[in-house]
Amino acid sequence: MKILSVNAGSSSLKFQVYEMPEEEVLISGVFERIGIGNSFYTIKINGEKIKKEINLDNHEQAFKILVDELIENKIVNDLNEIAGVGHRIVQGGESFNKSVVIDDDVIAKIKEYTPLAPLHNPAGISGILASKNVIPNAIQVAVFDTAFHTTMEEENYLYALPKSFYKDYGIRKYGYHGTSHKYVSMRMNEILGRDDTKLITCHIGNGGSISAVKNGKCIDTSMGLTPNAGLIMGSRSGDIDATIVLYLEKQGLSADEIDDILNKKSGLLGISGVSSDSRDIEDGIKENNKDCILAQKMYVKKIVEYIAKYYVELGGCDAIVFTAGVGENSTSTRKDVIDSLAVLGIKIDDERNNVRGKEAKISSDDSSVLCYVIPTDEEVMIARDTYSFI
Amino acid sequence: MKILSVNAGSSSLKFQVYEMPEEEVLISGVFERIGIGNSFYTIKINGEKIKKEINLDNHEQAFKILVDELIENKIVNDLNEIAGVGHRIVQGGESFNKSVVIDDDVIAKIKEYTPLAPLHNPAGISGILASKNVIPNAIQVAVFDTAFHTTMEEENYLYALPKSFYKDYGIRKYGYHGTSHKYVSMRMNEILGRDDTKLITCHIGNGGSISAVKNGKCIDTSMGLTPNAGLIMGSRSGDIDATIVLYLEKQGLSADEIDDILNKKSGLLGISGVSSDSRDIEDGIKENNKDCILAQKMYVKKIVEYIAKYYVELGGCDAIVFTAGVGENSTSTRKDVIDSLAVLGIKIDDERNNVRGKEAKISSDDSSVLCYVIPTDEEVMIARDTYSFI
Repeated sequence: MKILSVNAGSSSLKFQVYEMPEEEVLISGVFERIGIGNSFYTIKINGEKIKKEINLDNHEQAFKILVDELIENKIVNDLNEIAGVGHRIVQGGESFNKSVVIDDDVIAKIKEYTPLAPLHNPAGISGILASKNVIPNAIQVAVFDTAFHTTMEEENYLYALPKSFYKDYGIRKYGYHGTSHKYVSMRMNEILGRDDTKLITCHIGNGGSISAVKNGKCIDTSMGLTPNAGLIMGSRSGDIDATIVLYLEKQGLSADEIDDILNKKSGLLGISGVSSDSRDIEDGIKENNKDCILAQKMYVKKIVEYIAKYYVELGGCDAIVFTAGVGENSTSTRKDVIDSLAVLGIKIDDERNNVRGKEAKISSDDSSVLCYVIPTDEEVMIARDTYSFI
Repeated sequence: MKILSVNAGSSSLKFQVYEMPEEEVLISGVFERIGIGNSFYTIKINGEKIKKEINLDNHEQAFKILVDELIENKIVNDLNEIAGVGHRIVQGGESFNKSVVIDDDVIAKIKEYTPLAPLHNPAGISGILASKNVIPNAIQVAVFDTAFHTTMEEENYLYALPKSFYKDYGIRKYGYHGTSHKYVSMRMNEILGRDDTKLITCHIGNGGSISAVKNGKCIDTSMGLTPNAGLIMGSRSGDIDATIVLYLEKQGLSADEIDDILNKKSGLLGISGVSSDSRDIEDGIKENNKDCILAQKMYVKKIVEYIAKYYVELGGCDAIVFTAGVGENSTSTRKDVIDSLAVLGIKIDDERNNVRGKEAKISSDDSSVLCYVIPTDEEVMIARDTYSFI
């Protein structure tokens, strides 16, 4: 049975086709620059990568090309062979604590949460509508980034604001990257051979978040109302004094300018002045660039702070998991983080840590807590959830 | 030698007269509701408390009454006996890493930092000007809340924002309550009998902040650009996702409304809907008020988070110190905090913890870290610094 896993961004559309339940990826690809000119797409199949330039005005056009490619590449002979399409949706608010089959009510709800994810939710809806038009016989499933975090207790998701703000405006901590945190915590529990575990999962990529996971359930996470909060990210500030926003407005900056700065010009990019990509920061450190050294120090410090908080909140933990771009590939960031946790008895094994993009234990045998790299796979989670409805 | 210690708020003026170097308080008092009607003042002398209602239009009027009372109560026969006046100034920016004798340049600098402390710095200047007019022969000294925190490294005081924001707007973590953190850390070092210590000082009152202090120097603190950041306070939100400000503005709230909400309607008051006073929250908990129970949980959680962060940042610590209104008096808050630190081997002794407003060791003998209550005394610090210039 074929399942299509889809992740629609504001100007992009990523996809994988899985043979289920084997979870074998038959084809994958990404459409980029949809609706903004110079659009193109790349496809990976049988170890080969193909790039094609083509005009793409909207997600539906991309979707039509997608299914043409599936037929051309003999992934399917007929679109009816695609039993289900799973869609990544960033913000499901409190309405969705798990994946659901999409109907008109679900679409209406996703729309309702657009103010909380102004770029992502409309893109998700575009993907759903295109998919419904182009593959009308497939079951359509929504998989939410926020769902895994709906198990948090109110003392962990509320802010110390007037309570009416939660009721009237929905202001609370939602958390994001939930599908990734769920995937790596499930895998870590498999490795540990039990479910009654206490884990700290570090999804550190261009965006980044850390979750405290107890017995397979999220109890706390670093992102907040929006994905800007928590860790220092590629271009996002992470936690700052909120009154900075009001202060900057008094200096004459508009709300839109500040929003843009906090999300696109801050983080590693803001501090270093060089790049939002941690690989460029690492290169800068090798060249003794002071701003890159500072950016990395601050970046690591914030990760360490969240691990420290969650270690105490969980009352100790069984394992710390590193995943996503930086977490899977940056040996130096993992080393800096774990070395900073020395007082908790957590120790790295430098030889084991010399690994990129592969599952591996990286803590020393005498570490008080296991440390692992586990490559994340949000796409297979979307395929699994979609398959579960068939 | 007599030293007058002064703390001018926007509508208040607190004072103490010390006999130095004995540090004996000869008289103390507070003028309230200056310039806002129904003003009055109270004076404590020889164990007696006197309250008088009188019209006070400004700080200078209060100052004149203050010195009249000093003469009337025979604290001094002549104002020239007052050798120095020490003024608490909230925000000294990066210009002042210690107390200084006040001249016109100092006043100009304090004015310059007004945007960072819009209520406090103008009040401080009013106090200074009144003092200079009324007691012209005394040396005038400024003691800054921010000075103790100027030893922080840049990775600890910068935010992950474009670097120009620090240079152009002075946006960084300043920290507050410095005089209190300094006082209790000095006292803790006296108790420990050495200076090469690692301390976590918890100033928890109506406002609240926590500092990490290494070898007598502040390395990190919870307040930020303004005193709104960090812990949940009586009516201040503490740390929140900064994008909440932008989100609320999109819902139609003005910047001034949000500022007012974050500082005056949030914190314990916002969550509980009952009161900003932790004693009222404790009463509510006894009556099983759910919102008070929630407020206390969130309040404690945030304190625990900062202690966890600083414990790891310091690489362990020698002592945790509780001070200020709640820290000195709330046995239950201290117990909740320390019990939440169990995984670090930190343990309370319930009998020792049954103490209010007095210096006491409250950790058990087998606790991994000493825990102490040390009543703070910012006033005597101001007197000491003033005396040091004479």
